[in-house]
Amino acid sequence: MTPRRDRAAFPAQVGTLPTPSLIVDAEALEDNIATMAAALPGGRLRPHVKAHKCTSLARRQASAGHQGFACATIRECEGMAAAGLGGDLLLANEVLDASRLGALVREGVQLTVAVDSPETIDAAVAGGVRRVLIDVNVGLPRCGCAPDRAGELARSARRRGLEVRGVMGYEGHVVGLEDAADRGERCRVAMELLMAAHRDVGGEVISAGGTGTYACNVWASEIQAGSYALMDVAYSKLDLPFRPALFVLATVVSSNGEWAVADAGLKALGMDRGKPQIEGAKVWFCSDEHTTFAPSRPVGELVRLVPGHVDPTMSYHERLHLYSGDEVIGTWPIDLRGW
Amino acid sequence: MTPRRDRAAFPAQVGTLPTPSLIVDAEALEDNIATMAAALPGGRLRPHVKAHKCTSLARRQASAGHQGFACATIRECEGMAAAGLGGDLLLANEVLDASRLGALVREGVQLTVAVDSPETIDAAVAGGVRRVLIDVNVGLPRCGCAPDRAGELARSARRRGLEVRGVMGYEGHVVGLEDAADRGERCRVAMELLMAAHRDVGGEVISAGGTGTYACNVWASEIQAGSYALMDVAYSKLDLPFRPALFVLATVVSSNGEWAVADAGLKALGMDRGKPQIEGAKVWFCSDEHTTFAPSRPVGELVRLVPGHVDPTMSYHERLHLYSGDEVIGTWPIDLRGW
Repeated sequence: MTPRRDRAAFPAQVGTLPTPSLIVDAEALEDNIATMAAALPGGRLRPHVKAHKCTSLARRQASAGHQGFACATIRECEGMAAAGLGGDLLLANEVLDASRLGALVREGVQLTVAVDSPETIDAAVAGGVRRVLIDVNVGLPRCGCAPDRAGELARSARRRGLEVRGVMGYEGHVVGLEDAADRGERCRVAMELLMAAHRDVGGEVISAGGTGTYACNVWASEIQAGSYALMDVAYSKLDLPFRPALFVLATVVSSNGEWAVADAGLKALGMDRGKPQIEGAKVWFCSDEHTTFAPSRPVGELVRLVPGHVDPTMSYHERLHLYSGDEVIGTWPIDLRGW
Repeated sequence: MTPRRDRAAFPAQVGTLPTPSLIVDAEALEDNIATMAAALPGGRLRPHVKAHKCTSLARRQASAGHQGFACATIRECEGMAAAGLGGDLLLANEVLDASRLGALVREGVQLTVAVDSPETIDAAVAGGVRRVLIDVNVGLPRCGCAPDRAGELARSARRRGLEVRGVMGYEGHVVGLEDAADRGERCRVAMELLMAAHRDVGGEVISAGGTGTYACNVWASEIQAGSYALMDVAYSKLDLPFRPALFVLATVVSSNGEWAVADAGLKALGMDRGKPQIEGAKVWFCSDEHTTFAPSRPVGELVRLVPGHVDPTMSYHERLHLYSGDEVIGTWPIDLRGW
């Protein structure tokens, strides 16, 4: 990276940003979006906005042909709708208070919510949501009904006047497996459960998948991938045609012959999948506002950290700076944070 | 916790909060603050605001007698000054651009910054900061000069017109040790390094310590503890007289006979020191917006998660709700986030 001492001379350059800053390599981002759009064009991909929480980035995905989006929170649905991207939103999580979703529906937003229990069906009806997917557990111990209960829930939902568009089932226990053959085989097993549930439920939608299974999951009608656009250390271990586009820019604020310390730490990085990486260096550990790494680099030098996990990293930052070469070419608000 | 189904009947109760919400047990908070103020009254404690990032909470610490505060970021200094708590602020980290700090000094804020190199001394002078502490490495591989270089840096700083108030040295490699005897012994070793540096530097301030060493560090003139007020899973493993006051309130949104899923996850919890805890349950894992745990609990029930690490948890939330019993008695903005 450009040393910080050059910053004054190049006011529109990466070196002028305060640190820590979240930056994205615009070319890598565009390549990742284009690669995915070629593999899963149009409605075959339902980009998951939880990975970036940024309507400006979602708009690039829409420009690449994807009109439907998956959201993880009510706030994400509200923000997407406000940005004019509410043509086909799926809240791919269960909620017990759907009143804010119902308000969106009354404003004309096309919205579907996941349900996996009588209580969540009740909540959809009470809140004024009209469309649901039956969320099916396909092996990840999280939400979703047992596959053999999906038909009964669908009948119950239809009796309550809801449109059941189909099923959803996230093979989250599979998407991160590094061995591609193992990933493919376990994806097949998971999707057999989902297809069985779909036979009982009906509807045109079979929503599943993620960045790790976007290619091998040939059963789902649409893939909910999000991380592919920005990538992270965890997904970079897989054999995927996407490259790291997201970095936390930091300044070396202290150094000696043995190690250096950059001014980005636990409050700038999602840490649940491990430490960030720095090219050409070994990261020792992160503290609240610091990352210690070796070999040492001079005080004032800029470094780029690749986050271990993209999603919780985005949630720490207010904005994302796009860069090309050394030039900052845009700044996007990360406007879907919170709940 | 009160089941969610009761929420409508008690509009001022914890059950009316949206989830996830960050909540604090007001009585536990007051007890923690009072216990620390009795042990380290007045200027013997310099509460570190990085642990809570909340000026309203800092004001309670000031009411307990502590007038000086430690900050980790420039933003924290600015926010504390704006809240009228700028009587004696220490930015306990190195910076290379001190211009925003200089602006605070010109407004009358009493501000000291840590320096550990010629570059950070240059930055203090250029930015208009007048007072510094020499930051000394006492064993944690992070910032701080070698102890035998502290005197030379102090002389250099004084030649540049800076007031050198003394030394700082954080025994961060010691504060989390669970064995109290080991913690005490290694604290002594670290503080011997700091005292040696102080003999070369002079000044009235020897700033060190944290929640884990607040009692055994009898060498520092002031202790920089922050976590004691709210606590977390990591610090609860130590033999400290502070109790968990901070929780993430979540709703069970999905459950079966084997496990349950609450609607708070990686974007609501600092994860670098491990998973959150739920009383009476075992947490299996966290996802972006979910925590899976067992044994199962009914859909709609509220649960309290104790965060693994308080500091990066606070940074995810916009506000903190105080409760007493089941009643919400106040809401504080977490107003020192960002940089």
